[in-house]
Amino acid sequence: MNPKIVLRIISYLLLIVCVFMLTAVVVAIFFNELEEAKIFAAVVGVTVFIVGSFLFWTRSSSQPHPSFKDGFLFVTGSWVIVALFGALPFYFSGAIPSFCDAYFETISGFTTTGASILTEIQSLPRSILYWRSLTHWLGGMGIVVLTVAILPLLGVGGLQLVKAEAPGPTVDKITPRIAETAKYLWYIYLGMTVVETLLLMCGGMDFLDSLIHTFGTLATGGFSTKNGSIEHFNSAYIDWVITFFMVAAGMNFVLHFRLLTGQGRSLLKNSELKAYLLIFVTATLMIAWILNLQVYPAFKDALRYSAFQVASILTTTGFVSDNYEAWPHVAQAILFLLMFVGGCSGSTGGGIKVIRLVTLFKQAINEMKYLIHPKAIFPLRLSGRVVSKNIVYAISGFFFLYITILLLVTLAVCLSGVDLLSALATALATVGNIGPGFGLVGPTKNYAHFADPIKWLLSFAMLAGRLELYTVLVLFTPIFWKR
Amino acid sequence: MNPKIVLRIISYLLLIVCVFMLTAVVVAIFFNELEEAKIFAAVVGVTVFIVGSFLFWTRSSSQPHPSFKDGFLFVTGSWVIVALFGALPFYFSGAIPSFCDAYFETISGFTTTGASILTEIQSLPRSILYWRSLTHWLGGMGIVVLTVAILPLLGVGGLQLVKAEAPGPTVDKITPRIAETAKYLWYIYLGMTVVETLLLMCGGMDFLDSLIHTFGTLATGGFSTKNGSIEHFNSAYIDWVITFFMVAAGMNFVLHFRLLTGQGRSLLKNSELKAYLLIFVTATLMIAWILNLQVYPAFKDALRYSAFQVASILTTTGFVSDNYEAWPHVAQAILFLLMFVGGCSGSTGGGIKVIRLVTLFKQAINEMKYLIHPKAIFPLRLSGRVVSKNIVYAISGFFFLYITILLLVTLAVCLSGVDLLSALATALATVGNIGPGFGLVGPTKNYAHFADPIKWLLSFAMLAGRLELYTVLVLFTPIFWKR
Repeated sequence: MNPKIVLRIISYLLLIVCVFMLTAVVVAIFFNELEEAKIFAAVVGVTVFIVGSFLFWTRSSSQPHPSFKDGFLFVTGSWVIVALFGALPFYFSGAIPSFCDAYFETISGFTTTGASILTEIQSLPRSILYWRSLTHWLGGMGIVVLTVAILPLLGVGGLQLVKAEAPGPTVDKITPRIAETAKYLWYIYLGMTVVETLLLMCGGMDFLDSLIHTFGTLATGGFSTKNGSIEHFNSAYIDWVITFFMVAAGMNFVLHFRLLTGQGRSLLKNSELKAYLLIFVTATLMIAWILNLQVYPAFKDALRYSAFQVASILTTTGFVSDNYEAWPHVAQAILFLLMFVGGCSGSTGGGIKVIRLVTLFKQAINEMKYLIHPKAIFPLRLSGRVVSKNIVYAISGFFFLYITILLLVTLAVCLSGVDLLSALATALATVGNIGPGFGLVGPTKNYAHFADPIKWLLSFAMLAGRLELYTVLVLFTPIFWKR
Repeated sequence: MNPKIVLRIISYLLLIVCVFMLTAVVVAIFFNELEEAKIFAAVVGVTVFIVGSFLFWTRSSSQPHPSFKDGFLFVTGSWVIVALFGALPFYFSGAIPSFCDAYFETISGFTTTGASILTEIQSLPRSILYWRSLTHWLGGMGIVVLTVAILPLLGVGGLQLVKAEAPGPTVDKITPRIAETAKYLWYIYLGMTVVETLLLMCGGMDFLDSLIHTFGTLATGGFSTKNGSIEHFNSAYIDWVITFFMVAAGMNFVLHFRLLTGQGRSLLKNSELKAYLLIFVTATLMIAWILNLQVYPAFKDALRYSAFQVASILTTTGFVSDNYEAWPHVAQAILFLLMFVGGCSGSTGGGIKVIRLVTLFKQAINEMKYLIHPKAIFPLRLSGRVVSKNIVYAISGFFFLYITILLLVTLAVCLSGVDLLSALATALATVGNIGPGFGLVGPTKNYAHFADPIKWLLSFAMLAGRLELYTVLVLFTPIFWKR
């Protein structure tokens, strides 16, 4: 293990984030928010000075190849430290006077959760809101690169599958070369950002709002500039644009790459994509039907609100276009179920992820076959390829850990006197990186009312959920620290 | 597959249950409930006639050895048919005028769930209450024999572990010989019944109440003769006696056998037992502490109510000695977590079962070790023995299926307009064979308010949960019916 190398890599990452924070200075100046401009500039300045000094002083040290363990340290460490840095403008500008709150909001941003402690959003400076949503966008990009290029190398939670799923143009070329993969995905992400921003502007949103909501969409984050989230705009066009891009952001970005390079046919064979779209369409139609019967007399309204909210919860975005807690119980139950699912692997979505659920489902079916034919062999196939037992094993372990952590977080949240359903929804919404849930964290509420220790715990839950649990939890095992 | 043989075996089982129903005739006569006595006698008479004729007519058919598939048909078929038979007295006596309700109550009895549709229990004839609880006792005994002796042979849901755990006096002797195993366990069950009944009588309960509550305890069922369940008696002595026997009933009955035959030391090595007791003690102390702070100023009261309710939910009994929905949220959250656990394998308890959770926990830890040392081998040990990968595989499949079915039942219950928490609690309480839950199925409520289709669904959920899911679900796969 070599913490110095890890810190050096994180330092480079911080410098990149500093460059992006400079855009917040531009936004601040443009909107004449000079106080904020100074603070953003100061944070960048001090950070560059400290990080630069560190890099300079450690430049001569010998640099062995980073080990497996360094990989884990880097992944968790980078999210923790970058969020620490990102929280500073909120704290020093007085937009979020409590540091605990500021950190919560920032880690919620970088983990693309979108859980907020802000009760009054619209009165905040525009540059602060811009930075708040930029954390989503950066975190989202980070997570795609992480799951497509880094986690498979570390073998976390069965995500070797992503490697198998992501061979790109030539099988051996795209996967192992992190820089190359990252570059292609970056282009796609950037392209989608431009397109969605333009489309939202066509719907009458101003440029900054369009950009900020695009950040929230593509990162499946969910921070908005309005207290009422997307409901504020009350536009079917905007709802449908965001719905479309949420669904796209919940897909494996490697598939977007294939689609763009004319390999669209291979998508038809992709087990995860098929299951993902099936879940989306089924849930949307079911809820639309229920809403049509009981809430919205016009089917197109029912379909619009249903598709939006299903996409928002399924992809773990967390935008709200209608108060779904006022919907019939069964519609709420479907959303509750979707909170367990999440996006596709290699997307910006959180949750358990569709590929894991498909694997476990196929395995459960296989187990039934084994009951009847104990001596036979039933291979488990995904997208036509046989999945190795070790991967299924890792996924099973992940699923158990996920449910266990959900229940433990529920218990901890109840400690602060919160009722059971709210606590369970809080756990699902944070570990699954969704944002809003039910009850005290419902679509019209937020996370402000929790006590500080619970906020720290939830910050940890968001981080662990975002980084596929194992990446973070492994740091708490004695075996990790043994030489 | 040979349905005729299966029906013949179930017929013998029905004849045994008929013998037990005759005791209800005795109870009815003793309490001068002549109408009920006639009905019980008539049901027995007609059943013996029909079953006898069937056995007579099929006596000459050749009898091949029952196959694997016959085993599955027998297990599910016996519970379904015996419950059908057991529901008749409720229906014909008018105690439960709706057949759907009568079947629900009976399957709830035989699956040792204890979910009731009766709103006014105390006004019912004593013989009817006796028969209602006798279904618990018979079902409980059935399930112990099933999990210790039959399911391991069928290899359901990783319960081969029970076989490994249950070697008895000489490893090769007790397990394969179903009749022998059943006999020993039967003695233990009977002995515990006598002791608990006597102890409850010492606490001032009358003989019949003592017997009925013993049935409910040892089967981890939960039917009571009082509207207020055990709270009615308001006796610390009775609470503690029942607590003790609930905990005992939640243990593997093979361990009781070992304890009685002087092999108590081997219990100390049993992973499942250690985890089970650890969960019981930890949860009890946590809730007692919370209750002591906020509800009961005397610690002994807090401990009494806590221990009782923890034992009741953990072992999936479902007796209630205090309205736990009035407890602080965190105490409720702990009970909610316990609803996922269940008793030990080879006990009368339902739920996921401690042994499966221990296995999954150890596997999740192992997966972390593999992350750090991918090439190393970390065997998974239970009670000092290495567990084969295939068993862990089967258990993982079971866990996923359990959570999936919980969520699907939740969704279905929501369809009838029930709120989310109540629906989830209903799913947990039926699939886990617990009985009471939270919200609309809370400790002071019951299942009467559900619509008939939901009651049928919940009857199915109780059955599937009781028979380790796979046993029932496998019947719905096409591969099962293929020649």
